[in-house]
Amino acid sequence: VDAVLGSVTLSSDEAHHAQHVLRLDAGDEVRVFDGQGREWTGRIASLRRSAVSVDLTAEIAAVPEPPVRVTVGVGVLKGQQMDAVVRDATMLGAWAIVPLETAHLAAGKKRPRLSGEHWHRVAVASAKQCGRAVVPVIEGPTTLPDLLARSGFGVTVMLVEPSARASRARSLAEAAAAARPMTALVLIGPEGGWSEAELDLAANGGAQFATLGPRTLRAETTPTVALSGLWTLWGW
Amino acid sequence: VDAVLGSVTLSSDEAHHAQHVLRLDAGDEVRVFDGQGREWTGRIASLRRSAVSVDLTAEIAAVPEPPVRVTVGVGVLKGQQMDAVVRDATMLGAWAIVPLETAHLAAGKKRPRLSGEHWHRVAVASAKQCGRAVVPVIEGPTTLPDLLARSGFGVTVMLVEPSARASRARSLAEAAAAARPMTALVLIGPEGGWSEAELDLAANGGAQFATLGPRTLRAETTPTVALSGLWTLWGW
Repeated sequence: VDAVLGSVTLSSDEAHHAQHVLRLDAGDEVRVFDGQGREWTGRIASLRRSAVSVDLTAEIAAVPEPPVRVTVGVGVLKGQQMDAVVRDATMLGAWAIVPLETAHLAAGKKRPRLSGEHWHRVAVASAKQCGRAVVPVIEGPTTLPDLLARSGFGVTVMLVEPSARASRARSLAEAAAAARPMTALVLIGPEGGWSEAELDLAANGGAQFATLGPRTLRAETTPTVALSGLWTLWGW
Repeated sequence: VDAVLGSVTLSSDEAHHAQHVLRLDAGDEVRVFDGQGREWTGRIASLRRSAVSVDLTAEIAAVPEPPVRVTVGVGVLKGQQMDAVVRDATMLGAWAIVPLETAHLAAGKKRPRLSGEHWHRVAVASAKQCGRAVVPVIEGPTTLPDLLARSGFGVTVMLVEPSARASRARSLAEAAAAARPMTALVLIGPEGGWSEAELDLAANGGAQFATLGPRTLRAETTPTVALSGLWTLWGW
């Protein structure tokens, strides 16, 4: 063991998984990652009830991260649908995921349970499965005005229904065709679509409206389609 | 009822759904589509055990189909994963879906059940949900040599792992950047990847190798990512 690399203690979730699901033992080889872009091989040094210690043996080259830090703001969906969004946006390189409490969601009958800790676990599992060494930040639920009030996004793309304000909505390729930004915000509405006030607010904030074409997409697939299109344009 | 429009009899699946799930009655308004691009409003004329007759009232403009007829050849996946592929490829405008029995699949331990009729039902349900009036043809399982032996595809894009023959694999944007074809064949390997012989065969047939980037994608999501990228490039 390289003394410079040192050792790490697994989080309690991972410690439980290592002992009771994978049934690992002292000396077994593992891969660990810090969720911020670095990954190592290691060997289990000790296991106790909720603490597993790993001696790091070598750092390995992680999968390159995307060239654009994309924040995905997405109208909160029902349980399993939102899990799919978190899983697939993690796989497709989202830098951060912001669940949005939108106007048309608030008007619905039943507000989905919001669970940042659960979504974080879904993101960690997806990062592991896809070999991504970065786990996106999943922020607490916020509103569109609060998200738009933050500065610093190089480009904001708001996805709209083909029917909504069609005269100003362009294809994703047109909306994102300018020089590749360093950061971007992609806004995906709830199943009921954006309210007029939300569309106005985004337009005033300089958002580019884009449609993903004439067909209706299943809600939980929309972030996958949008991110796939953006990486085709921006390269990843 | 316009005499020119006439009436239609629903298929037994749809007749069952109309009576026992939707609990429709004579006089109720429905929308029907022929799976080949046309859609109508209609009114239920009569219901019997397995026969439901609908008087067509007006033809409605269907969602425009994609500008390229894309055939998706995809290594057969396990039950639910293959259902997801059929569902999402239908949503994303595939013209035809060809389940492929590839070399690495055949080497696996358990061959998935192949069920064209089941997949057709999944495709019909997806077309209904997405407002698409065309149901892709789902062909019987075939092999890569047989599929490649067919002529008539304007462009053939074979998706490969970033590690496989990296020197010849380009991004999807580069592989599909030439003038938009009328027809295309997109080849998506099984979870075990293509065999060397399959890669050679495709190369000799003029296929463009493309990667979808450095990350590992979940197998059932790969067709969605590929089609989303192609429509971003080709416009739909």
